[in-house]
Amino acid sequence: MKKGVMRPGHVQLRVMDMDEAVAHYRDLMGLIEVDKDAQGRVYLKGWTEVDKFSVVLRESDTPGMDFMAFKVLNESVLESLHGELVEFGLDVEQIPAGELSGCGRRIRFVAPTGHSFELFAEKEQPGRYGIGNHNPEAWPRDLRGMKAQRFDHCLLYGDDLDETYRLFRDVLGFDLCEQVVDPEGTRVAQFLTCSMKAHDVAFIKHPEKGRFHHASFFLETWEDVLRAGDLISMTDTSIDIGPTRHGITHGQTIYFFDPSGNRNEVFCGGDVFYPDHEPITWDAEKLGKAIFYHDRQLNERFLTVLT
Amino acid sequence: MKKGVMRPGHVQLRVMDMDEAVAHYRDLMGLIEVDKDAQGRVYLKGWTEVDKFSVVLRESDTPGMDFMAFKVLNESVLESLHGELVEFGLDVEQIPAGELSGCGRRIRFVAPTGHSFELFAEKEQPGRYGIGNHNPEAWPRDLRGMKAQRFDHCLLYGDDLDETYRLFRDVLGFDLCEQVVDPEGTRVAQFLTCSMKAHDVAFIKHPEKGRFHHASFFLETWEDVLRAGDLISMTDTSIDIGPTRHGITHGQTIYFFDPSGNRNEVFCGGDVFYPDHEPITWDAEKLGKAIFYHDRQLNERFLTVLT
Amino acid sequence: MKKGVMRPGHVQLRVMDMDEAVAHYRDLMGLIEVDKDAQGRVYLKGWTEVDKFSVVLRESDTPGMDFMAFKVLNESVLESLHGELVEFGLDVEQIPAGELSGCGRRIRFVAPTGHSFELFAEKEQPGRYGIGNHNPEAWPRDLRGMKAQRFDHCLLYGDDLDETYRLFRDVLGFDLCEQVVDPEGTRVAQFLTCSMKAHDVAFIKHPEKGRFHHASFFLETWEDVLRAGDLISMTDTSIDIGPTRHGITHGQTIYFFDPSGNRNEVFCGGDVFYPDHEPITWDAEKLGKAIFYHDRQLNERFLTVLT
Amino acid sequence: MKKGVMRPGHVQLRVMDMDEAVAHYRDLMGLIEVDKDAQGRVYLKGWTEVDKFSVVLRESDTPGMDFMAFKVLNESVLESLHGELVEFGLDVEQIPAGELSGCGRRIRFVAPTGHSFELFAEKEQPGRYGIGNHNPEAWPRDLRGMKAQRFDHCLLYGDDLDETYRLFRDVLGFDLCEQVVDPEGTRVAQFLTCSMKAHDVAFIKHPEKGRFHHASFFLETWEDVLRAGDLISMTDTSIDIGPTRHGITHGQTIYFFDPSGNRNEVFCGGDVFYPDHEPITWDAEKLGKAIFYHDRQLNERFLTVLT
Repeated sequence: MKKGVMRPGHVQLRVMDMDEAVAHYRDLMGLIEVDKDAQGRVYLKGWTEVDKFSVVLRESDTPGMDFMAFKVLNESVLESLHGELVEFGLDVEQIPAGELSGCGRRIRFVAPTGHSFELFAEKEQPGRYGIGNHNPEAWPRDLRGMKAQRFDHCLLYGDDLDETYRLFRDVLGFDLCEQVVDPEGTRVAQFLTCSMKAHDVAFIKHPEKGRFHHASFFLETWEDVLRAGDLISMTDTSIDIGPTRHGITHGQTIYFFDPSGNRNEVFCGGDVFYPDHEPITWDAEKLGKAIFYHDRQLNERFLTVLT
Repeated sequence: MKKGVMRPGHVQLRVMDMDEAVAHYRDLMGLIEVDKDAQGRVYLKGWTEVDKFSVVLRESDTPGMDFMAFKVLNESVLESLHGELVEFGLDVEQIPAGELSGCGRRIRFVAPTGHSFELFAEKEQPGRYGIGNHNPEAWPRDLRGMKAQRFDHCLLYGDDLDETYRLFRDVLGFDLCEQVVDPEGTRVAQFLTCSMKAHDVAFIKHPEKGRFHHASFFLETWEDVLRAGDLISMTDTSIDIGPTRHGITHGQTIYFFDPSGNRNEVFCGGDVFYPDHEPITWDAEKLGKAIFYHDRQLNERFLTVLT
Repeated sequence: MKKGVMRPGHVQLRVMDMDEAVAHYRDLMGLIEVDKDAQGRVYLKGWTEVDKFSVVLRESDTPGMDFMAFKVLNESVLESLHGELVEFGLDVEQIPAGELSGCGRRIRFVAPTGHSFELFAEKEQPGRYGIGNHNPEAWPRDLRGMKAQRFDHCLLYGDDLDETYRLFRDVLGFDLCEQVVDPEGTRVAQFLTCSMKAHDVAFIKHPEKGRFHHASFFLETWEDVLRAGDLISMTDTSIDIGPTRHGITHGQTIYFFDPSGNRNEVFCGGDVFYPDHEPITWDAEKLGKAIFYHDRQLNERFLTVLT
Repeated sequence: MKKGVMRPGHVQLRVMDMDEAVAHYRDLMGLIEVDKDAQGRVYLKGWTEVDKFSVVLRESDTPGMDFMAFKVLNESVLESLHGELVEFGLDVEQIPAGELSGCGRRIRFVAPTGHSFELFAEKEQPGRYGIGNHNPEAWPRDLRGMKAQRFDHCLLYGDDLDETYRLFRDVLGFDLCEQVVDPEGTRVAQFLTCSMKAHDVAFIKHPEKGRFHHASFFLETWEDVLRAGDLISMTDTSIDIGPTRHGITHGQTIYFFDPSGNRNEVFCGGDVFYPDHEPITWDAEKLGKAIFYHDRQLNERFLTVLT
């Protein structure tokens, strides 16, 4: 049952060289650079996003994800979810408005898999980049690189999938769209949605807590995925795999790494979900096909390279 | 604020020759024929839809739309919306489960524009055609014609747009995604959504009540729109306009007519909506570009041929 | 039988305002501006073309085509074709090397339809724009607008199709790839090729001599045709028709006008031709479908607006 | 200098189980089955090809290629090339008309790399499958699987690339479109064309003579390459690599194996060649990128699995 969580609002990533990172996320991936704060953090967004930003880059000695945030419908939803998180047994940290430039107050908690998540209700809303909402053209003419349309989801590796699912389902109102189940009936991968998208966040079972697999960005077409692959090659960017299709979600995808080693995905397509849909189940012995529909086997790198 | 209305559930269309209509909707458009009832009504669905059917064809002397239905989350939502519809001042008719084959009880009402709408909470759910939800392949190999993926929305012509908007917004929880406003500030077109889609139903101002403009079906890609156009030509089907892009929603589209003269659309793409988005506004003097982004003018037929 | 004519080498178009024309051909269509000569003529090329230029713009009081040229294999082919043209009964004008910047000597003649054509064997060959021919990337990153790949062909209107066909077939070694024939058996349209392309030049029967219908440029994909249509709208460029498919050649196309009223086409696809192929024949009563495969009727503008 | 060799005319492949092979080439790849001869050989073609067949399957204990043939312009070209082949020092075998069903007389020779090639001038020409050449529709509605449009080229592994190049260039009139050169200046891969295509046959240096790497078939679009990959997975067909892009030719591709282990490629795109074009040169140390533009490294299988 939907509880008022709307969508992934932002992700904060640690990068080891800010100039290189900006060249990657802005010039190669085509995100729009929108701000830089006093701490030196750089803010970007996909051009179709109406809110001020969806990606925050923070310079650090180690790569990885600081936190991922979801935007909720309004302040009263935020208030009520705060109470439910506490009731679930989590410590909830309060971060004041303005700590991220243009973002209202956030509440932060650590999921049982060890990942930090945030909720917020307010963010400056300058509208779609370059076209606005009055007689809008189809797209802005000055986009760069991959022309990524939006920050779409993260895939995270961690240990306690069951409790994390219970948190996202019961407290945050997410649905289980797709899952991988092993022969013993244990869920080893869960793709969760708070929308019609096949996933807004996903988790894969892993012995360590709090590992980051990738942040994913939406492209419009399979031809855009091809051109993303071309750009990866032209810029000597490290590729993981693709272009290919996923079995899970059926999206069309390519994976690569930012200069700090954080994995990115750009993809298009993906199945549509409604809350009355039964989850789609993949058998763990079909994991290769579930992840990479064409190759039907996983590359070692995909399973083991995490930040 | 979402009220539990999930999606367009079905549309019942009047056709003048059932065999020709089935050839059109099944063989040309690629809908899956799933049932025929004692009244002779034929039931079809798009292959990605999980519910039993989304299109009902009824043989009649005149073309047009009998009613359009929305599926709601569950029985208690249905009950509660029933009360609110009555409170809004509408007569609400109750149709027992099974009147449409495989569909639970429906409640029906007439919107201020003169169109009949229904709500229902239950329908048999055989799942996606040909692939199911256990290790599902990307698509079934035996699809026909345009391979329409789902019934997506209807566009309706009628007089009282303001009250109809009030009904859909306040009672049914729809949002106004996009609108056309004339120089006097009157809304002459409204695109309403109960989801992330740019429209689940749309209305254009027209002096007569209860007119049907088109039923629209979703395709996966712009290349599918091209092949739809090719098939329209190969089958000597009457075309209205396209392939082209809409300004409103930015979807890519082609319009044509079924053998009874009911207009159909197949399209792909379309902007994404969330409830915190400001509506997009088009000036009425840009109506040509708003409807047909490339030609920037309306063809006479698009405005006047209704059923 | 091939006689050594390789491909359309260039077209010289008359434009009424050079700045506007350059904005159109370079910024909108994405041709590469390569030179300007002492007469003020501007030279452009598609980025995949290896020769220095393929489009020459000349400022004038009237729009239209000055001449279209074909590149031949080498100087001895040029010499031999010169002799055959004279033998055919044509006046052949000699234009010295360098009259067009970077182009070798040309020979010019007027076809029976009243159009001026040229042949030449030498032109500076800087190679594909931005990628060269040593470990070449897939495409240059700085392309603009429609990213037109090459000047592809012209469609010309004129009276004496039969003699012009005889000239192109017997002297220049072109093949008849496709034709439209009226009920009396008269060929009213002829699509001629010196290559594997469905046409390198085409003629439509028309009472006046020497009229110019359009110059056509090749795009890579149907998605590029969509984006061309988007750009036409964004730049308030006058559109003729499209996106659509041709019956003849089966290419996918959109037509529009440069600021002087010269018609342009950008298209993708198109059938493949070999010299042992029988010509494809369209009945004149199917002319609508032959030209615009989806609409199956001609718009008045397509038939009557010529420069 | 063109010598009248037009295009790849057919390839005869050895398969170990004819029923499985037909299921692969007809049902999966979408070739049209056109004949079976007294020897049990099965004949197929791509739907856009005008000649009767382009693929011949012969049941055998070992996979591989028996021979590849080129169609020449006419009988007098065939006669004259016969003389030149003998003069080049090759044994030329004559195979009478009808030995392949519907094919005229062929002449056969073994290239210095150890591969058998044939030339022929005549083959029954039933025209494009399903659409003919009178008011032809855009495509036939009953195509299957990958809808392969034509047999396009073969890639062969063998030792004596230099003499084979001399044979194809000087005797058969092919051009060198693209090459890979090692640091010592030795050509280790050569892509040869008798047309505008980036290759009609290609050779890679290999210590053994007469090895077969793959037969390649043309698809229309990158979306068709995706669907080919999907079908490979759905049918549990052995995949090699893809979807991806080549650096060489810049085509978009996927590789897989027939049930006997012969490698197939389906691809779209590819650069255009004219005889005045300089060859494109790749450095051998860029071989990974030259072959697989996105991954920039070869998979072991691509280099070593040959039939």
